[in-house]
Amino acid sequence: MREDLDLVRERVAEAAHVDFPIVSGMVRDIVQAGGKKLRPLLLLLAGKAFTYDRPRLVTAAAGVELLHTASLVHDDSIDRAAIRRGQPTLNSQLNTGSVILIGDFLFAQSAILAAATENTRVVSIFASTLGDICDGQLREMLGAHILQQDRDDYLKRIFGKTASLFAGAAEMGAVIGGAPEQDIQQMRGFGADIGMAFQIIDDVLDLREESGELGKPAGNDLRQGVVTLPTMLYADALPQGSPDFELLERVVVGDETNDDVINRLVERIRQSDALDRAIEVANEYVASAHKRLDVVRDDETRHHLEEVLQLTIARSA
Amino acid sequence: MREDLDLVRERVAEAAHVDFPIVSGMVRDIVQAGGKKLRPLLLLLAGKAFTYDRPRLVTAAAGVELLHTASLVHDDSIDRAAIRRGQPTLNSQLNTGSVILIGDFLFAQSAILAAATENTRVVSIFASTLGDICDGQLREMLGAHILQQDRDDYLKRIFGKTASLFAGAAEMGAVIGGAPEQDIQQMRGFGADIGMAFQIIDDVLDLREESGELGKPAGNDLRQGVVTLPTMLYADALPQGSPDFELLERVVVGDETNDDVINRLVERIRQSDALDRAIEVANEYVASAHKRLDVVRDDETRHHLEEVLQLTIARSA
Repeated sequence: MREDLDLVRERVAEAAHVDFPIVSGMVRDIVQAGGKKLRPLLLLLAGKAFTYDRPRLVTAAAGVELLHTASLVHDDSIDRAAIRRGQPTLNSQLNTGSVILIGDFLFAQSAILAAATENTRVVSIFASTLGDICDGQLREMLGAHILQQDRDDYLKRIFGKTASLFAGAAEMGAVIGGAPEQDIQQMRGFGADIGMAFQIIDDVLDLREESGELGKPAGNDLRQGVVTLPTMLYADALPQGSPDFELLERVVVGDETNDDVINRLVERIRQSDALDRAIEVANEYVASAHKRLDVVRDDETRHHLEEVLQLTIARSA
Repeated sequence: MREDLDLVRERVAEAAHVDFPIVSGMVRDIVQAGGKKLRPLLLLLAGKAFTYDRPRLVTAAAGVELLHTASLVHDDSIDRAAIRRGQPTLNSQLNTGSVILIGDFLFAQSAILAAATENTRVVSIFASTLGDICDGQLREMLGAHILQQDRDDYLKRIFGKTASLFAGAAEMGAVIGGAPEQDIQQMRGFGADIGMAFQIIDDVLDLREESGELGKPAGNDLRQGVVTLPTMLYADALPQGSPDFELLERVVVGDETNDDVINRLVERIRQSDALDRAIEVANEYVASAHKRLDVVRDDETRHHLEEVLQLTIARSA
């Protein structure tokens, strides 16, 4: 698979090439910095599980990776994040207008790649995935600074924001691979499960890891008023009206912004069992994903897909 | 055509429906405010010139209108415009993050409509048009505050920013209408010509009209350091180093921001022949567009397409 992932990287680099010297270097850096390429890998493997149509799979995988990058660019601009993947973000170097346009440009390039598969169903998955991502991000923004949320809100939100692209990637791969409809749905479910586990673990790491390891401050979500699963579980265990509950509420609402106080709150959450319980929820998704792999007959490909699953959990170790 | 345009409006309204009370009203307003619907009208007529596949044409036309709206939303956020189509813009009411997301959401919905045509060539035109729009907007932003530009730079920029969507709309219509390849290219050319004329006239109006009529201050482009055709023609006629030339340069570079001084510069441009000469260039595109209509055999449709052309010029009367 390594060779095919290299092909994906080449396609992404070509597509992200910009004619403008001022921004081309920055766009190249952001595109090349990209982590483990889990989404394109998932797409390639979901295709390989059936019929391996390399050119179309590589094209679609590059489209998925660029869509992911485009959405990170806008996301960082919305969060005003200064660092991503250990590198300065575009919005720490450019004005908002440029960042919006560069994100749009990357969206356009990803759509061009999706269209180049010449498969109407792939294009349609691509478009509805983009819709789901926006839905999730809107939910996150509009739901910020509200402590009382139920778990369904959270799950809907992280499905859109994160799991939809994993689900879409796996579905596109299986569609291009010519899988029977039932197997396509299993692969989509596999992607969705991985994505849900991935985001829950991300939300745990946000509270557990220091800034050096993540490239951003611990408790970043809390500082933005975003309530995630571990925070919900921590809140559920607190008596309403207790000093701990009130502190949490003040931080989420945005009335308390003192760094030391927030650091102490993060410490309280770590000492509770909230992080472990959130990891348990993530593990349920991992178990569900695991089961779905029964539809993959080819041992080697199933083994690789299990590795992708392991890569997802490994981050929480 | 009025009935079919109503169908387009309905599709646009459905697609732009958002689940979030806070923003749904604002999105509805912005989608419904939309001007003369020239782009969807062009798409429908370009299809009608050949075979009228109403459902697909209406779907694609709604996609084109939403793509246009999405790009206006981001554009206003980039320009920090407060008023558009006589209404307050989203970015005068919401924070930048929300505006980015709402624009992305509308992009997603437009892509979903394009995919729903189930025509891979339409999807591919859609995606490359989005790419062209971003290219034009990047060129405009990166070329701002530079007085010395040649006309080719300007033409490339306005093709991307404006004409590409007219060209794409006409091309999609003809493709859906099953036109022969040569006629598809003529219809694309027709759309491109209309779009070029449209933008040049827009650039003239920006200098000629007072704020009341346009919903924004006269000379808005100049205030943003954006050099348009009339400004280029005005500059060309000035001796370099003359006081008028130096004033223009200071305004474009951004060293002179005093409103009264800029208003006087706008007055100087109006008194020159630059606006008339720019209109002449626009008229060349109109004449070229006119000639291309020979490929349309059906008298009624050709007549309607001529009306679209007249609507474009009428704005400059």
